Amino acid sequence: MKFHQHISALPTYEVGKPLELVMRDYNIEPQNVIKLGSNENPLGTSPLAKKAIIENANNAYVYPDDSYYELKESLAKRYNIQSNQIIIGSGSDQIIEFCIHAICDKDTKVLMAKTTFAMYAIYAKHCNATILRTDDFFHNLDSMLQYYEKHKPSIIFLCTPNNPLGEALRRDEVLEFLGKIGKECLVVLDCAYMEYCAYRDSDYAITPKDIIGFSNVIYLGTFSKIYGLGGMRVGYGIANTDIINTLSKIRPPFNITTLSLKAANASLLDEQFLLDSAANNFKEMEKYKNFAKQYGIEMLESYANFITFILHNKLNSTKISNSLLQQGIVVRDLASYGLNAIRITIGIPQQNDIVIQKLIDILQEL
Amino acid sequence: MKFHQHISALPTYEVGKPLELVMRDYNIEPQNVIKLGSNENPLGTSPLAKKAIIENANNAYVYPDDSYYELKESLAKRYNIQSNQIIIGSGSDQIIEFCIHAICDKDTKVLMAKTTFAMYAIYAKHCNATILRTDDFFHNLDSMLQYYEKHKPSIIFLCTPNNPLGEALRRDEVLEFLGKIGKECLVVLDCAYMEYCAYRDSDYAITPKDIIGFSNVIYLGTFSKIYGLGGMRVGYGIANTDIINTLSKIRPPFNITTLSLKAANASLLDEQFLLDSAANNFKEMEKYKNFAKQYGIEMLESYANFITFILHNKLNSTKISNSLLQQGIVVRDLASYGLNAIRITIGIPQQNDIVIQKLIDILQEL
Repeated sequence: MKFHQHISALPTYEVGKPLELVMRDYNIEPQNVIKLGSNENPLGTSPLAKKAIIENANNAYVYPDDSYYELKESLAKRYNIQSNQIIIGSGSDQIIEFCIHAICDKDTKVLMAKTTFAMYAIYAKHCNATILRTDDFFHNLDSMLQYYEKHKPSIIFLCTPNNPLGEALRRDEVLEFLGKIGKECLVVLDCAYMEYCAYRDSDYAITPKDIIGFSNVIYLGTFSKIYGLGGMRVGYGIANTDIINTLSKIRPPFNITTLSLKAANASLLDEQFLLDSAANNFKEMEKYKNFAKQYGIEMLESYANFITFILHNKLNSTKISNSLLQQGIVVRDLASYGLNAIRITIGIPQQNDIVIQKLIDILQEL
Repeated sequence: MKFHQHISALPTYEVGKPLELVMRDYNIEPQNVIKLGSNENPLGTSPLAKKAIIENANNAYVYPDDSYYELKESLAKRYNIQSNQIIIGSGSDQIIEFCIHAICDKDTKVLMAKTTFAMYAIYAKHCNATILRTDDFFHNLDSMLQYYEKHKPSIIFLCTPNNPLGEALRRDEVLEFLGKIGKECLVVLDCAYMEYCAYRDSDYAITPKDIIGFSNVIYLGTFSKIYGLGGMRVGYGIANTDIINTLSKIRPPFNITTLSLKAANASLLDEQFLLDSAANNFKEMEKYKNFAKQYGIEMLESYANFITFILHNKLNSTKISNSLLQQGIVVRDLASYGLNAIRITIGIPQQNDIVIQKLIDILQEL
């Protein structure tokens, strides 16, 4: 077969060992593992979502309702928009994929911040598009605008709050920026962690309603983070109906499981779970701040459910991550982002206390 | 934005009303609906799979193990192949998508039978490939070979048993055909309904092991049919590691839900459920055969879990499907395939008895 050259040239996917087996090698029982590497909700699955899953387990043999009527109606109500302004994806990841597939080829450019969610570039490479990154460490909208004017990208990705650094963009600045981008360029506003950010500071809170008037902007949200359904693969895109109708043309049928739809819909109604999740997050984040201050570690200001430590001097992110892993603690080494940094999801109190103590132990051993 | 012209030109996705609301309009309670339109397993979800879902509901917040280690190991054992010869997809649909995306563009051709699974052509159109179809009603390998030699397609799809017609290809004929196709052309052997076919007649049973020696063939299987997990979206592709490695490069991470993996793995172990499903299928199929014979309706010979009636004279497939729908019975009108035909999934005894009686009523009213 003649596979596309640009696809054959992609790095081969390395099949990792499942966490359970890694832990077995270290003689750590699964229930003792502290998994703070993937920004899952440490409070777990919302009780309402869990109930919905169990009640619908008997229906696992039935294809989902492919109109996603119920979930779209709930999202439309939540965000005060129309249900035909919504597309549902297998995680917001899949909406990113739809946007890139519908627009990109080898003659197009995709613009993003220097250090941001890895999937933008990965999907762009699937389509052989050129990837442009701004020069600044954090999102810089002035620089983004200069790149836009100079290079005329077909898509711009903004990630706010930004994974893996944690910074966020002010609502007024984003809206001003959007006003300066021509209609020929799609702006993807990835708001996977927005609920945390909105809880922390309303000046940084952006809603789908804010962007629905722009003909060239799509807002992405997900059930994988604060909604506690990372394993169920449900995300959504919200935009004007022209964008939604076009992306829907390449959406595979039945891209969401029957149980995921029920779980997502139930989790939307669990307001208390969301409040508890956000409250735990920022209360517990203080512990990491205090640790960082006390031990002279650089911690980035975070609007999301994780914190990022930038390491200096003798500290090496890969060594520290591996050392933690051997003790049953999973964090994210950001070496693959070209950073000597680790990202830690904020856990529940007991988890954070253990992680901080282990970090202190590591520092004192040096 | 400038969406790809060939994508903008695709038909707009019509959001259908969910079945539940349609039935409400007809004053039919959800529990009274007989859903025989999507070839789901009428025996429902395997008890082992249901148990796995309930036991893992608490883990809905955890991203799946992206190596799919456990499920691949189980499949490798089941089929006596290596786990690195397997790729897991969100239904076997997604493997079809990977194959087409990795190979096709506007300069490539995709060859398939005249009337076969609709998604082959749909995904080919996403990539602007040219679609070629043989002229015969059923799969005809001689004709397929002539088309191959004349048009040099990049991909050939064989669907056995074939959806929506139900015919199957003999194992020896398929293997002979594969030997005549050059290595530059990928042959996708879609075996979504193979377990039914193999139960009925071993001469038509093809296994992944049969094709693993071909460098240009991929075998597709699914958990959506006899395994009773249509709603969980799990399928697989089995081929030599070169093909698997390339397709894996464009597989999105976490394309399967955490619960789907557990359910699929559990269902693989439920041998009794598979046997019961196949036995019910062919026992009950006799009822439809008898009905067809008695009323002079043309029924196609089926190796799958559905039967297809070709209608003649005064009978119109859309009218009959609608008439059944208003009585709470969902079947598949094949008008969209250009056929005056209906496809009915073989249900459980009570369902089939009701459907046949309703069909008799409709015939007698004419």
